[in-house]
Amino acid sequence: MDEVDVPEDHPRYQSLLTRHRIEAGVDAGITSRQGLIAEGRGEAFDYLLGEETIPSAERSERVAAAHFLLADHPVISVNGNVAALVPEEVVELAAATGADLEVNLFGRTDERVAAIAAHLREHGAADVKGLTADARIPGLSHERAKVDADGIYDADVVLVPLEDGDRAEALAAMGKTEIVIDLNPLSRSARHAAVPVIDNVLRAIPNITRHARDLADASREDLEAIVESFDREAALEDAERRIRTGTLET
Amino acid sequence: MDEVDVPEDHPRYQSLLTRHRIEAGVDAGITSRQGLIAEGRGEAFDYLLGEETIPSAERSERVAAAHFLLADHPVISVNGNVAALVPEEVVELAAATGADLEVNLFGRTDERVAAIAAHLREHGAADVKGLTADARIPGLSHERAKVDADGIYDADVVLVPLEDGDRAEALAAMGKTEIVIDLNPLSRSARHAAVPVIDNVLRAIPNITRHARDLADASREDLEAIVESFDREAALEDAERRIRTGTLET
Repeated sequence: MDEVDVPEDHPRYQSLLTRHRIEAGVDAGITSRQGLIAEGRGEAFDYLLGEETIPSAERSERVAAAHFLLADHPVISVNGNVAALVPEEVVELAAATGADLEVNLFGRTDERVAAIAAHLREHGAADVKGLTADARIPGLSHERAKVDADGIYDADVVLVPLEDGDRAEALAAMGKTEIVIDLNPLSRSARHAAVPVIDNVLRAIPNITRHARDLADASREDLEAIVESFDREAALEDAERRIRTGTLET
Repeated sequence: MDEVDVPEDHPRYQSLLTRHRIEAGVDAGITSRQGLIAEGRGEAFDYLLGEETIPSAERSERVAAAHFLLADHPVISVNGNVAALVPEEVVELAAATGADLEVNLFGRTDERVAAIAAHLREHGAADVKGLTADARIPGLSHERAKVDADGIYDADVVLVPLEDGDRAEALAAMGKTEIVIDLNPLSRSARHAAVPVIDNVLRAIPNITRHARDLADASREDLEAIVESFDREAALEDAERRIRTGTLET
């Protein structure tokens, strides 16, 4: 990461890197207006969280990794902000877990899907789904319902980084195990997730990859034990407590 | 306000109107990328505040009105988001208090200044300052220091809606009475303001106008008593308490 001219231990490093990547994302046609507003919402919540991965989020990230490794067909849903902020990081997570990458946008246009797919390929993705869009998620309006039949439609585990409450709900209603990364523990997407990860995608995605590598040789039983011990309500409550009062249960 | 197709008492009215005006602002070249991110940050804090004017903010708004009426030369500083969100409302506030309107941008370009001035004139502004830019605020880098000699530079009371911590500090250092509207009570701009108004500009600006009309016939002594009784620390603490714990002192 030599994109910004400050050392990685600089207190503003993450924020400067984020700003730089988002700006570049706009220039490349992959970050939308809604994406910029969503970025601002995330910044505010991250500020209140202390701009760090809280212990309950770290646990959620390990559970997310276990779900990925147990899945028959895990898919990482990629929107404009995720592609702008963590392109290399999602490619690494896909490689570490055997997951597919699928571009899935709130404001879908063929141009933006193509630009995002190209951006992911530039960062090492071999195969990017989302361009076929030959299946529909039930219960969503036309453009937002579009997914690939051999991608998200077929997946048993879906990682949905960043927010789209309606789609998060509709995917959960299809019976998929949904992992949501969202900085707002009160959001509908976080509340509907099997595994809510209340953390910045810049920290969350590499953390999930690290846990997946750490668990690569774990038995199915061990992975299932990790998944079953997870308390999603406690994770949401802990993040809300941190945001509201600056303290943590653990 | 018939710009959005929902009644004013609809629970999502304010948020839909905000979204609509910000989108129109981008189309008109007056809302910047930084403005969209700032809008998102504001949304998050407003959400935690309960999306309403809390009693301490209402008091700040009355104090702001008293400062306007006591001032020799009050100026309302207008940036891209303010112009997009409350163009008619700032024109009304200027008319109710005899204040000047001055365009003052974080990312200043002559094109954006001209577009914003034109937008304000379309909404009824007779005179818009900020195009001459023939004076400088001490202590700021070149583009951000630019103000009009017969506008903000000369003002004794300045309303600075929305965030720019550096400029808020520099204006305060010039000895001006600074009224800051910001949804983040922890921001540097709010902390440096003589009157921090922790509220959404969509609610705050019409509220200040209402108080100014209500106080139009008040004596100088009465206005001074309102100003002197104000406790800025209490206003900041009350807003932070609401954001952090969902409760209020009053």
